[in-house]
Amino acid sequence: MIAGYIQTDPEFGNKPKNFRQIFSLATDTRADLLVLPELFATGYTFTSPEETAQLAEPVNGPTARFMMELSKLTGAVVVGGFIEQEEDRMYNSSLVVTGETILGSYRKIHLFNREKLWFSGGNKAPEVFEVAGFRLGVMICFDWFFPETARTLALKGAQIIAHPSNLVMPYCQRSMPLRCLENRVFAITANRIGRETRGADDFLFTGASQITGHKGDILSQGPVDQPHIALVELDPTAADDKNLNDYNHLFNDRNPSFYY
Amino acid sequence: MIAGYIQTDPEFGNKPKNFRQIFSLATDTRADLLVLPELFATGYTFTSPEETAQLAEPVNGPTARFMMELSKLTGAVVVGGFIEQEEDRMYNSSLVVTGETILGSYRKIHLFNREKLWFSGGNKAPEVFEVAGFRLGVMICFDWFFPETARTLALKGAQIIAHPSNLVMPYCQRSMPLRCLENRVFAITANRIGRETRGADDFLFTGASQITGHKGDILSQGPVDQPHIALVELDPTAADDKNLNDYNHLFNDRNPSFYY
Repeated sequence: MIAGYIQTDPEFGNKPKNFRQIFSLATDTRADLLVLPELFATGYTFTSPEETAQLAEPVNGPTARFMMELSKLTGAVVVGGFIEQEEDRMYNSSLVVTGETILGSYRKIHLFNREKLWFSGGNKAPEVFEVAGFRLGVMICFDWFFPETARTLALKGAQIIAHPSNLVMPYCQRSMPLRCLENRVFAITANRIGRETRGADDFLFTGASQITGHKGDILSQGPVDQPHIALVELDPTAADDKNLNDYNHLFNDRNPSFYY
Repeated sequence: MIAGYIQTDPEFGNKPKNFRQIFSLATDTRADLLVLPELFATGYTFTSPEETAQLAEPVNGPTARFMMELSKLTGAVVVGGFIEQEEDRMYNSSLVVTGETILGSYRKIHLFNREKLWFSGGNKAPEVFEVAGFRLGVMICFDWFFPETARTLALKGAQIIAHPSNLVMPYCQRSMPLRCLENRVFAITANRIGRETRGADDFLFTGASQITGHKGDILSQGPVDQPHIALVELDPTAADDKNLNDYNHLFNDRNPSFYY
């Protein structure tokens, strides 16, 4: 299968422009899986719950419709971030879309920093989506820091983890090889670039979106300061073999009775 | 406090020689914690359960007595590996010794490769030892690969993880920064060097013993091909602060109800 990411430079609050940038990067793209950054339509750095609410959407809002168009254009299952509103709550979510179908949303469990002022923490367990030809887990940005997130997705059968991100710390890209190695899964970290100085925050997003292989090898890494699209060919079934050698199976060797 | 490791080049089956090498490296050493490699007295590469049994000891055997001597010589709590025999079972264990006191043993939970032919898997949960001035967790070599091991020790209060090792894969040293970062703990990986070609195995041990800081920084790394001793000064209480920023606490932000 062909899987990859689109790394963008969103303008805060300008959804039409942010959608257009992605279309311009995806021209002529054919793929099975495309991952977009966290909150790719809106930008990241909010200053109030009200501002966040103004950019929020239901699951089937304009961002979903844009992702459906991108899916039909490219043939890919599309994963990307949006502000999900449900009743009076807002979540930092990612949507999974294929063609005209919304497969579901994942609501970020581990909110980073002042996100806690604008968003509610995810209220659903991380889920694995069975799509055509592979099993897809989703986590969002800072979720990576908690080993339990990728572990849970892998134990639930994920072969590939889609990882929409807006990274500002220096750790993730160098750490994803271990996340993939310890779980024998592929991961696609779709990051953004650019700077947002708003409210109390001054965030420089680190780019360098990364596709990490199931043995911890970096298959592709993007630039730190340019919009970018990258695709790789990978075999998701390689992630099903959890045997490290003739005697060690990464999941069967776990001993949960001794774990906190 | 002063903490470090002694990296050695054991000769298989020659306990007296292996003890002498450590004494010669520790001359004039004063420390609070010293970590020795996995199975430092015996060597690693067994060919039968019988051979393993010949080198096994009770908890208070000659290896414990050697470690007590080293503790009294240096002033340090000493952690190091040995073959622990209890009834008809043998464990790949590490002992924790201070002065004339045996604080306890940890039995490796995640056995690597053909170790499963010679050893029983650890039958006790990883434990944190309260010693003078700091809280000490112990894991052995391949245990590192499973994020649950260090996580469990950190959640139980470990400030420093002593990590006796006989590493043969290329992953551990580059991965310990994440293990320490995600748990905000210090780790001392005491590795060995040299080659053992015995039975079905031909192991080249990778040396490069490593002291890793609680924020994922490498504080000290040894050579790949020489015996070595290294000590650093560190503040174990720095590991008690799990606040990554004003809003994120690495443990309080966990959401175990969603984890497998």
